[in-house]
Amino acid sequence: MTLNEVTISRAILEEQHRALVDYLETDVAVIGGGPSGLACAALLGERGVSCALIEKKLSIGGGMWGGGMMFPRIVVQEEARRLLDRFGVTYREFEPGYYVAKSVETVAKLIAAACDAGVEFFNLTTVEDVMVRGDGRVGGLVVNWTPVGMAGLHVDPLTVACTCTVDATGHDAMIARMIERKGGNLQVKGESFMWAERAESRVIEHTKEIFPGLFVTGMAANAVAGECRMGPIFGGMLLSGERAAHLVAEKLGR
Amino acid sequence: MTLNEVTISRAILEEQHRALVDYLETDVAVIGGGPSGLACAALLGERGVSCALIEKKLSIGGGMWGGGMMFPRIVVQEEARRLLDRFGVTYREFEPGYYVAKSVETVAKLIAAACDAGVEFFNLTTVEDVMVRGDGRVGGLVVNWTPVGMAGLHVDPLTVACTCTVDATGHDAMIARMIERKGGNLQVKGESFMWAERAESRVIEHTKEIFPGLFVTGMAANAVAGECRMGPIFGGMLLSGERAAHLVAEKLGR
Amino acid sequence: MTLNEVTISRAILEEQHRALVDYLETDVAVIGGGPSGLACAALLGERGVSCALIEKKLSIGGGMWGGGMMFPRIVVQEEARRLLDRFGVTYREFEPGYYVAKSVETVAKLIAAACDAGVEFFNLTTVEDVMVRGDGRVGGLVVNWTPVGMAGLHVDPLTVACTCTVDATGHDAMIARMIERKGGNLQVKGESFMWAERAESRVIEHTKEIFPGLFVTGMAANAVAGECRMGPIFGGMLLSGERAAHLVAEKLGR
Amino acid sequence: MTLNEVTISRAILEEQHRALVDYLETDVAVIGGGPSGLACAALLGERGVSCALIEKKLSIGGGMWGGGMMFPRIVVQEEARRLLDRFGVTYREFEPGYYVAKSVETVAKLIAAACDAGVEFFNLTTVEDVMVRGDGRVGGLVVNWTPVGMAGLHVDPLTVACTCTVDATGHDAMIARMIERKGGNLQVKGESFMWAERAESRVIEHTKEIFPGLFVTGMAANAVAGECRMGPIFGGMLLSGERAAHLVAEKLGR
Amino acid sequence: MTLNEVTISRAILEEQHRALVDYLETDVAVIGGGPSGLACAALLGERGVSCALIEKKLSIGGGMWGGGMMFPRIVVQEEARRLLDRFGVTYREFEPGYYVAKSVETVAKLIAAACDAGVEFFNLTTVEDVMVRGDGRVGGLVVNWTPVGMAGLHVDPLTVACTCTVDATGHDAMIARMIERKGGNLQVKGESFMWAERAESRVIEHTKEIFPGLFVTGMAANAVAGECRMGPIFGGMLLSGERAAHLVAEKLGR
Amino acid sequence: MTLNEVTISRAILEEQHRALVDYLETDVAVIGGGPSGLACAALLGERGVSCALIEKKLSIGGGMWGGGMMFPRIVVQEEARRLLDRFGVTYREFEPGYYVAKSVETVAKLIAAACDAGVEFFNLTTVEDVMVRGDGRVGGLVVNWTPVGMAGLHVDPLTVACTCTVDATGHDAMIARMIERKGGNLQVKGESFMWAERAESRVIEHTKEIFPGLFVTGMAANAVAGECRMGPIFGGMLLSGERAAHLVAEKLGR
Amino acid sequence: MTLNEVTISRAILEEQHRALVDYLETDVAVIGGGPSGLACAALLGERGVSCALIEKKLSIGGGMWGGGMMFPRIVVQEEARRLLDRFGVTYREFEPGYYVAKSVETVAKLIAAACDAGVEFFNLTTVEDVMVRGDGRVGGLVVNWTPVGMAGLHVDPLTVACTCTVDATGHDAMIARMIERKGGNLQVKGESFMWAERAESRVIEHTKEIFPGLFVTGMAANAVAGECRMGPIFGGMLLSGERAAHLVAEKLGR
Amino acid sequence: MTLNEVTISRAILEEQHRALVDYLETDVAVIGGGPSGLACAALLGERGVSCALIEKKLSIGGGMWGGGMMFPRIVVQEEARRLLDRFGVTYREFEPGYYVAKSVETVAKLIAAACDAGVEFFNLTTVEDVMVRGDGRVGGLVVNWTPVGMAGLHVDPLTVACTCTVDATGHDAMIARMIERKGGNLQVKGESFMWAERAESRVIEHTKEIFPGLFVTGMAANAVAGECRMGPIFGGMLLSGERAAHLVAEKLGR
Repeated sequence: MTLNEVTISRAILEEQHRALVDYLETDVAVIGGGPSGLACAALLGERGVSCALIEKKLSIGGGMWGGGMMFPRIVVQEEARRLLDRFGVTYREFEPGYYVAKSVETVAKLIAAACDAGVEFFNLTTVEDVMVRGDGRVGGLVVNWTPVGMAGLHVDPLTVACTCTVDATGHDAMIARMIERKGGNLQVKGESFMWAERAESRVIEHTKEIFPGLFVTGMAANAVAGECRMGPIFGGMLLSGERAAHLVAEKLGR
Repeated sequence: MTLNEVTISRAILEEQHRALVDYLETDVAVIGGGPSGLACAALLGERGVSCALIEKKLSIGGGMWGGGMMFPRIVVQEEARRLLDRFGVTYREFEPGYYVAKSVETVAKLIAAACDAGVEFFNLTTVEDVMVRGDGRVGGLVVNWTPVGMAGLHVDPLTVACTCTVDATGHDAMIARMIERKGGNLQVKGESFMWAERAESRVIEHTKEIFPGLFVTGMAANAVAGECRMGPIFGGMLLSGERAAHLVAEKLGR
Repeated sequence: MTLNEVTISRAILEEQHRALVDYLETDVAVIGGGPSGLACAALLGERGVSCALIEKKLSIGGGMWGGGMMFPRIVVQEEARRLLDRFGVTYREFEPGYYVAKSVETVAKLIAAACDAGVEFFNLTTVEDVMVRGDGRVGGLVVNWTPVGMAGLHVDPLTVACTCTVDATGHDAMIARMIERKGGNLQVKGESFMWAERAESRVIEHTKEIFPGLFVTGMAANAVAGECRMGPIFGGMLLSGERAAHLVAEKLGR
Repeated sequence: MTLNEVTISRAILEEQHRALVDYLETDVAVIGGGPSGLACAALLGERGVSCALIEKKLSIGGGMWGGGMMFPRIVVQEEARRLLDRFGVTYREFEPGYYVAKSVETVAKLIAAACDAGVEFFNLTTVEDVMVRGDGRVGGLVVNWTPVGMAGLHVDPLTVACTCTVDATGHDAMIARMIERKGGNLQVKGESFMWAERAESRVIEHTKEIFPGLFVTGMAANAVAGECRMGPIFGGMLLSGERAAHLVAEKLGR
Repeated sequence: MTLNEVTISRAILEEQHRALVDYLETDVAVIGGGPSGLACAALLGERGVSCALIEKKLSIGGGMWGGGMMFPRIVVQEEARRLLDRFGVTYREFEPGYYVAKSVETVAKLIAAACDAGVEFFNLTTVEDVMVRGDGRVGGLVVNWTPVGMAGLHVDPLTVACTCTVDATGHDAMIARMIERKGGNLQVKGESFMWAERAESRVIEHTKEIFPGLFVTGMAANAVAGECRMGPIFGGMLLSGERAAHLVAEKLGR
Repeated sequence: MTLNEVTISRAILEEQHRALVDYLETDVAVIGGGPSGLACAALLGERGVSCALIEKKLSIGGGMWGGGMMFPRIVVQEEARRLLDRFGVTYREFEPGYYVAKSVETVAKLIAAACDAGVEFFNLTTVEDVMVRGDGRVGGLVVNWTPVGMAGLHVDPLTVACTCTVDATGHDAMIARMIERKGGNLQVKGESFMWAERAESRVIEHTKEIFPGLFVTGMAANAVAGECRMGPIFGGMLLSGERAAHLVAEKLGR
Repeated sequence: MTLNEVTISRAILEEQHRALVDYLETDVAVIGGGPSGLACAALLGERGVSCALIEKKLSIGGGMWGGGMMFPRIVVQEEARRLLDRFGVTYREFEPGYYVAKSVETVAKLIAAACDAGVEFFNLTTVEDVMVRGDGRVGGLVVNWTPVGMAGLHVDPLTVACTCTVDATGHDAMIARMIERKGGNLQVKGESFMWAERAESRVIEHTKEIFPGLFVTGMAANAVAGECRMGPIFGGMLLSGERAAHLVAEKLGR
Repeated sequence: MTLNEVTISRAILEEQHRALVDYLETDVAVIGGGPSGLACAALLGERGVSCALIEKKLSIGGGMWGGGMMFPRIVVQEEARRLLDRFGVTYREFEPGYYVAKSVETVAKLIAAACDAGVEFFNLTTVEDVMVRGDGRVGGLVVNWTPVGMAGLHVDPLTVACTCTVDATGHDAMIARMIERKGGNLQVKGESFMWAERAESRVIEHTKEIFPGLFVTGMAANAVAGECRMGPIFGGMLLSGERAAHLVAEKLGR
């Protein structure tokens, strides 16, 4: 068989075009590909929910690649160990209740799980704004290519519609802040000091629908609530992602 | 149980310190975490070879995350389809002999396979130089944290020893060029024009030991040989990585 | 009627997708949207040739927008006046044989003419490399989004096939230089000193096929030939574009 | 005839100097060369109003060149279709009521129409401030070369006088904000969330004189009013430009 | 004896790893390696207190290296002369009561004294946040490699625990400002105008515990108190460092 | 009398326009406003030669403003003292034969002298190329606004014609290098080591016509000749400027 | 006589050192070398007042070098014409009452006049802060080399004492703003819209002592007062400088 | 006693001015404040040689502050242990013959030793060129403030004379390269691959006078000789510095 460059290009264009058009309307859009966003998306996908994960960077995984201070290991506590097992991440017990995994493996296994669950990834994609129509709920996102902004160019965005949006953008709680800045009834209080114990336990309850159609998970949940900052431990993130998936599925009646 | 921040930090430091010290001497160092480097490392690991994958960026995966022109799909031809199967990557047949996979999934599954095979990842790590002692062969690498160079700081590197080195750095063939620049008997001819058909078939034969102790794979192999540039198709990359793993294992007597 | 954001996005995606796929194989690709490239493309289009104009910047028009030293006027000599008329550009006679037009109008009218002639524009698109297969001729282009490079990202390109390529990239003669750099039998001599009189008359004869499948026009033609630099006068550019269109059409048997 | 470089330079200097001096006093200054500014200027010019269009960038056209997310197509709804016809822009019906045009053609045809209507373009020109004398109305603009600011140099501006000013600067509503910042009786509320349906219909009524002598059009009109953000559809922009032209002409008694 | 590169690397890794782990819990963390921080750390070390000095830059010494306006000399008044003697810094009397030392020597001798007193230095380390648990006191620091931030990367930090923290970060009073920004009961008033006489005498009394567990010294002390700015004279800095050491030791019961 | 902003702007535009048009053809263009260029221009102007001084920066004066290492004083030796007197620069004798002047005053007095002699200054103007027609001599310059290049914009230049050109661009000998780069019969050897004594005496003889129509003066003269570098003393510069003026006037028959 | 490089360096160092030490205490420090600062300093110097002019840039002259929009001409009205005469600046009458001068000549002649009047210039010098002691008046300045800040280095400043300080820093009114920011009883209202007529006449009355020991002149005077912005006309600047000189001299009893 | 800001400033200026003038002529100038430069300067100072150490950065110490890969420890082998003892640096034996010291302490103690030996430090000082007069030997240096270059300003340098110059600029061998670039009879071969064993032993013999008046030490010695690169071990550096001091002293007859 002879390879043809044009067929290769056409294959890429046709396949991705179909995905783009299919996901112009989707059940759920998760913004941010860190641990809580990935866990949430993977678990929604497993329930058969149509879910798009939108990541502004080229690679998925957020801040987890670098472990703690570039030492690529992460720690997970007892409560979340079952999620490591669920996603196939290997680990070692350091002290009773403290499990250490490799950050690179954890990222890869979470992404792989989300892919296997049917999640569609849109990387290099920045959310510029949200769509709120007469019903007063977040009904879609205004998106653009990330490099357009990095290059300082002025190009108009496109829009995608979704029934539920999950803000998994970390410290910045970017979607929540957009709504606050435009006068939506929502206040982002910002993280307080670091206190791992408290932050890890409270993040679950702060994971909720904070504005009609908008859920928040992971560090973004604590940032919105003015809760303590989380330490270099990832159990709370994964559990928060799981909780967000549960709440969203409930909302969608799945 | 109460979470303790110091225990978390100590867990990360102790675990990664052990990895760092363990890998100061290793069988193989693969430089570059793109498709050919990942395939090579995964297949070496499966054979029980101690293998470190060194990547200068924060995330692993190289240029594959973005697919073609930011449309996150990749194409693989018939010959390499079995490797997609081997690494658990799902795909769709576009036309007979042209299989399309998602770039994000492909990256994640390749990393996951390498992790499962016992490969150790060192990301944010730049190779500054190579070590060549009296035997005239590449016997180790001079490494540093990538952010040190990005920040324009002057900090001395450390060294790691390895029996075999694999240059999987893509177009730039960075390790090969270092040796050429310092007067080693090696010429990097640079890629020629794009011609996918030819480049895909020739990359396998250009995958070889190009200097005592140094193997080359993927686009770097074609760049060293002055071969044609590869199109947006990844079969040749994966097959080249497989071949490099075979040659290295042979050299090591595994 | 109610406006729907998703329909709007789908309309844009579907329409442009069709154009992208249609132009994966085209008769002619003109690289560079300055005056000679625009004239060449417009005149080819008028002859019914399928022609894509690829421009790396966001806007089309090249260096003509700013006139001379930001005074947005251009001058055209007697010989090329008929082309101003042909494209509907208004002008004023300054001295016998020197016609002054507005640079903004000239750009707009040239683009409008090319559009009316059926030329398809691909802006924000950078040509990274050329495709040369066994027949030794330029048979296609390796293209990428411009912002990808501006943002310093590493994303693979796609390829488009074309029967004829026109290098209209100005001073830099970028396509010709790519071929020279990769060892093609072609030398880019670089512009000599400015001498408007000579440069304007010689540019026509330097407009030709300089490598199998590759034509050169405008300032790029003089740069390849080592000819004098053109003054702030645009007649030679337009006439060179006209000549390139003629030669390409002849080659294609139109 | 022999071409003379000095005559060419003199022609450019003399012609543009006349334009500069002529437009030191003009009926209308439109700030911003996007779709609403261009439509407004073209329609004013057609009524015989002396009109200068001031654009800070080198090229005219604003954000329209890139279509939606770099897919160079735009959508126009039924209500504004007659303006596409008026400016000679070709289009295709995608679904009933949704017309798709090429973004490059649309820009070029709008500029061409404005030129044909006698509008004078001043590109690379930044408005630094406005002139308000004893009568409390915007009576002129303080302008400078754009590259002076880009290069971080300190060079004093010049002034131009105009009877009416049109703020067509998009999201930023830059002229309106200047007046607000300096204590003028005017509040720029900023755009609300995206809601295409509402934004498109309301932009017409928000197009008005917002401060003595200052009119606002296009996205700037919605930004001043705190109205919803417009989707990737251009009918409202064109209709707003038409309305601004009508209001300004009325004010001038044309 | 034969030198082995791997042994060298292992020696560095092992020794520094032990220091890192040892100092995950320490009595005192001094933030900032300027004159007051160095004096404080040296004097605490001499009392047998376990003390870590954390400096964000590569080199220790802060703003003292450059003397005044790059003339590398510093002045110390009569009251602090005994500290120059204590640290072994040589000087010359310029006028009665004004002693001039070399800035380079002063930095080196202060660091040497701190080293001899057992202080451990962590350079290239940035404090990103503080740890405040249920007891409402600063109980630790959230730290990261400085180059990570300089390179614009997103990598998670680690934490260290300490009984007392000393903010010796100069003008910026960075630790105090972190606490203020997150709602701690603390106000950083900012330096007032320069008045050396007053600033030098008041800095001693402003050196104190400003928040449970947090002490402030040197310019940071004056910045928190809204006190006058210090002139190019270093006696007050050294005396403030001495006072901070005294207060901290007292608190620790040493 | 009432001040009118438009009259002010018109006055500036009209007056400078006349200068621009008048100097499209001039006897002499001096490139570079450092000491040798200023002295040359002033002395040519005094002889009644029409002379334009073109300076790429905003301010005139080159490297002289900063004296030596930002200590704003310059030294002139006995031989050139009469030129300080001629230009009205005050000085003090430091040791016999060494006269010290203020750098700021020296610049201002040299510019003032050139203005009084009728020299026309074109600042913020960059020479991009030279014009060489059939007679093989430098007959003009290709010029552009400096900020255009600083801002990375692409705008075409204009041309000015001149009978003689003086390269006073310092170390870089920029005009000479342009000619060398484009294949003119001229070699720029580059400065040798610093040796003030030799450099100061030789610069006079290296001041000459180095290419038909092109003279070189000051540091550029030594750079072309491969002569020693000049110390922080300005006598040679001024004497070289004087010599250049003499040679140019002779050539012009004045 | 033989030239000696060391003698040249010593001459520069010794002479400037004397100036630096002499001006550690001076009657007046004028901050900013634009037209009003230069006029003020020159006229104070003529009255025998010891005066230092401190300029942050390398060259003196501020924004005047570039004329209006890089057309290097300035306009002066009838009232200030006598100051052009006084400083020896040549001009042409454009219309009755509007005199046009060359911007380059005007700068040079103003500096020359200030030098002849004995003003000492300190260029490349940034004022970082002011000194206010127990008497509550500005009694000195905290200064540093400008390049230190441009290079992002941290080096301590030095101080100079002066009886009167003149803020001639233009739009920014930097000295006034420093005092406002640190809580001094002073409000900088910022410039209002441009209205040349009013701004030119009011600037004289706004020229005054605005804080004990601090006078304000030129655009800074209007910025402090919230007055209208001045047009591209320089009479008001010169007259304001003259008035500032008068007020300062009066204060000093000269 | 009352502190006076002006006295403080005067003290700094007077003291450093004396140092500057004293060192305009010196026995030895060592360029570069890394370990070999510091050791060389300290040992020369101990022999009573007048020695200036010139460092381009703000802090002294070069690349040693960061240890290996930001782990601030260094290793020294048996042969050089006596130099650690001589300079008072504490260390721990890691394995027989491998001594580990803290990098921060090592830098500080080396500087302190040099200060105690009477070495004068000139930091923030860049060597731009060398002085070579009729005798063909390096007789001095052309120096400038480092921030001037960092800020992209153009300010002339000053010169200092010295009998011997020591190039201790590390990898770059900057002084040797300056001489090579300007045609001096000297070739800088560049470092070869890393081989610690060989590099450490050969550096001593490569430490020598490489051009009349110019000695080379440390990594610069190996770079000039084309010798192997040194590992992260500092014994060779210190011994090379000791040897350079010996050779220089011999040359000077001390």
